[in-house]
Amino acid sequence: MQENYVDKNFSSLISDLQKLIRQPSVSAKNLGLEECSRLIVNMMKNSGIHAELLYVKKGVPPAIYGEVKSKLNPDKTLLFYNHYDVQPEEPLELWDDKPFSGKVRGNKIFGRGSADDKGELITRIKAVEAFLKTIGDVPCNIKFFIEGEEEIGSVHIEDYLKKYSTKLSCDAVIWEFGYVDEKDRPVISLGMKGLLYVELSKTESIRDAHSSLAVLIENPAWRLVNALKTLRDENGQILIKDWYNDVTAFTKQDLETISKEPFDEKSFKKEYGIGKFVADKKGLAAKKALVGDPTCNIAGFTSGYEGPGAKTVLPSRALVKIDFRLVPKMDPKKQLVRLKKHLKENDFGDIDVKLIHGEAAARTDISDPFVKIVKDAADGAFGSSILSVSSAGTGPMFSFVKFLHSPCIAVGGTYVFSRIHSPNEFARIDLLKKTTKCMCKIIRNFAL
Amino acid sequence: MQENYVDKNFSSLISDLQKLIRQPSVSAKNLGLEECSRLIVNMMKNSGIHAELLYVKKGVPPAIYGEVKSKLNPDKTLLFYNHYDVQPEEPLELWDDKPFSGKVRGNKIFGRGSADDKGELITRIKAVEAFLKTIGDVPCNIKFFIEGEEEIGSVHIEDYLKKYSTKLSCDAVIWEFGYVDEKDRPVISLGMKGLLYVELSKTESIRDAHSSLAVLIENPAWRLVNALKTLRDENGQILIKDWYNDVTAFTKQDLETISKEPFDEKSFKKEYGIGKFVADKKGLAAKKALVGDPTCNIAGFTSGYEGPGAKTVLPSRALVKIDFRLVPKMDPKKQLVRLKKHLKENDFGDIDVKLIHGEAAARTDISDPFVKIVKDAADGAFGSSILSVSSAGTGPMFSFVKFLHSPCIAVGGTYVFSRIHSPNEFARIDLLKKTTKCMCKIIRNFAL
Repeated sequence: MQENYVDKNFSSLISDLQKLIRQPSVSAKNLGLEECSRLIVNMMKNSGIHAELLYVKKGVPPAIYGEVKSKLNPDKTLLFYNHYDVQPEEPLELWDDKPFSGKVRGNKIFGRGSADDKGELITRIKAVEAFLKTIGDVPCNIKFFIEGEEEIGSVHIEDYLKKYSTKLSCDAVIWEFGYVDEKDRPVISLGMKGLLYVELSKTESIRDAHSSLAVLIENPAWRLVNALKTLRDENGQILIKDWYNDVTAFTKQDLETISKEPFDEKSFKKEYGIGKFVADKKGLAAKKALVGDPTCNIAGFTSGYEGPGAKTVLPSRALVKIDFRLVPKMDPKKQLVRLKKHLKENDFGDIDVKLIHGEAAARTDISDPFVKIVKDAADGAFGSSILSVSSAGTGPMFSFVKFLHSPCIAVGGTYVFSRIHSPNEFARIDLLKKTTKCMCKIIRNFAL
Repeated sequence: MQENYVDKNFSSLISDLQKLIRQPSVSAKNLGLEECSRLIVNMMKNSGIHAELLYVKKGVPPAIYGEVKSKLNPDKTLLFYNHYDVQPEEPLELWDDKPFSGKVRGNKIFGRGSADDKGELITRIKAVEAFLKTIGDVPCNIKFFIEGEEEIGSVHIEDYLKKYSTKLSCDAVIWEFGYVDEKDRPVISLGMKGLLYVELSKTESIRDAHSSLAVLIENPAWRLVNALKTLRDENGQILIKDWYNDVTAFTKQDLETISKEPFDEKSFKKEYGIGKFVADKKGLAAKKALVGDPTCNIAGFTSGYEGPGAKTVLPSRALVKIDFRLVPKMDPKKQLVRLKKHLKENDFGDIDVKLIHGEAAARTDISDPFVKIVKDAADGAFGSSILSVSSAGTGPMFSFVKFLHSPCIAVGGTYVFSRIHSPNEFARIDLLKKTTKCMCKIIRNFAL
């Protein structure tokens, strides 16, 4: 019944998603966040969902709280977690359309946020609308919590979860996104990696110099290169002392689940145009890495002249942005101390370390009854689905577990090659529809 | 007599220099070159100098040829070499005024090119003008050769020197610039280092990826970091096999000249805000390095996200710009082969090496009679001067020696802390005046 409603009213989902994409909301630049949050509140109200803005402190983007109380079953509450902010749109020159176009071409809708996370958000709003417009009620209480800082590391999520823990209390959480693999199977992810995002910088002199002075003035880019070389070997192993100390081995059940997970290496490599993986990983090793390997990634390196042609300059400063992915039991604070200690002990104490963000990993136990509820719904809507021990990505799942004490499961409709965080991000229109229906089934199954 | 003329008409030098600065001429961006060359031709004509544009091929900025034939002494010819192009003006945010302002503040005139090389050029034009306006002649033939590609490595200088070798034939060359040290003594430089400017780049995948995929997709910035680490040690020594093979030791006369050269370490360090030099060099070692050490300098490094905040991206590409300074006998072509071989042998054959520019070093023998002519003139105009075996910088001196078979000496009025190639570049007004008078004396002494 709700699925029929979704089919009949699908054009409104697309036009609403276009409206969302066309409202830029780049948290890294503090751009359009207030505007976007108000747009969503109105959209939710139009769907029949009570919606309001939540605040924690001045200067922090508001979060959106949404609620529908169930008359049928007021004892069970399902919470949808999403975010309305998006990644920066750079590099601009690689977009085929404008980054916030919302342009529909065939089965795709393009634009920053089309998949991550506005595409996911709209399927959930429309699923709840389907119940309200067909039976005038929802099968269980529904809550929405939509933050505006996910792409900069959910900086104030703990403040929100702490301040509004009663308001947000629930029995289970559907996470903000979920991948659909290259065979159109949703990947139900029970966990997320953690993240330690830092900037290492070195300021050598008070101004750029002519590069002929490189015989005397130290080059801060060389300094960073030398420091970086001590952090990671060519196989991706992190060389920082004690970095892996708190990492626990996979359980037998984890390994079974991982080995069952399909992984189309060929398509993956083709999509990115690469020949082989880091350390030439293959098959199970590659799958295990996605679930359980910490990383040390250079997300950005900038120093000196970056324009066309030749400039013979000795830069005064160099900066590198590094994101370390963490796995369960690794504490970002502890890892940061290890990084700083490593630099000091290796004679790089002059390099400035700035913490941008830290977040612990989290996993929901595979035996939790909520896992089967979600799996059955996904199988129903998509034909089949895949269970995953943990996503390779990061989100503030650890904070939800800590404050709401509820199982969290990530399931959604983001096609695995949707180019999220990259130019020409898109959402697949067929998957948006299936995902909306999947959300209807989750709500229905959960209420039973 | 000419010196009096310089004093009386000095305001026109400043206003002409302002006109030159206000006409941007950035060769790296192909910006304003044609306009600037025409402006200079007119300016020279106004000073009584025959001037015309020279061309070698389409798309190459014109060079300016200037000439005044001497009735007094038509058998000797002095050539002034200069350039009208400037370095890119970035980083914009560090300029106090606009980069092309030509603003005068106290004893300084600011703007990109104020010192390098428009400030130097104007002193030579005005020195020749002083003769023409006072005695209606010049004591010897004067030629000007002013190119528009010096800041991108004088890419077509050999084409010009070859095509116009008869037109440009001369008995001696005054080089395009010369430093004045922190005690107002001009440094007469008899040589220049060579340069090998390359871009190393690595493209790993066809698009940026989410950084959670760093467990599988290789990061091109890491690849460059690993390759770079094999090129240079922390003391500035270049680790490329056979890199120093062709370097010859200083002669006794070189060493004597170097040891006599003053070098104010304290002022130098204060100007750049640095505590110590590369490899903790001091005194004579620092001076020897400036004259005779090859370098491997990172002039630019760019990869991934360079904006504010956190972006969790795995960049598809990384690029580093490196300038190697070379000393006499090092052949840029041979050194490039050594670099490529080194990368290949160290398993970095996948890194793309693009030659941006190569130029050999050159030195004029200290016993050449032209050396004394210039030294006497400089002593006269400035009170004292310093002889230097070679500048730490690079210019196409080797090509001049090869095609014009003349001694080349660098002498000029660029204050050593003029911030050339950097924000807030300036020329000192008192030095512009002294340098113009110095040029008058050189012309007079040379004609004897």
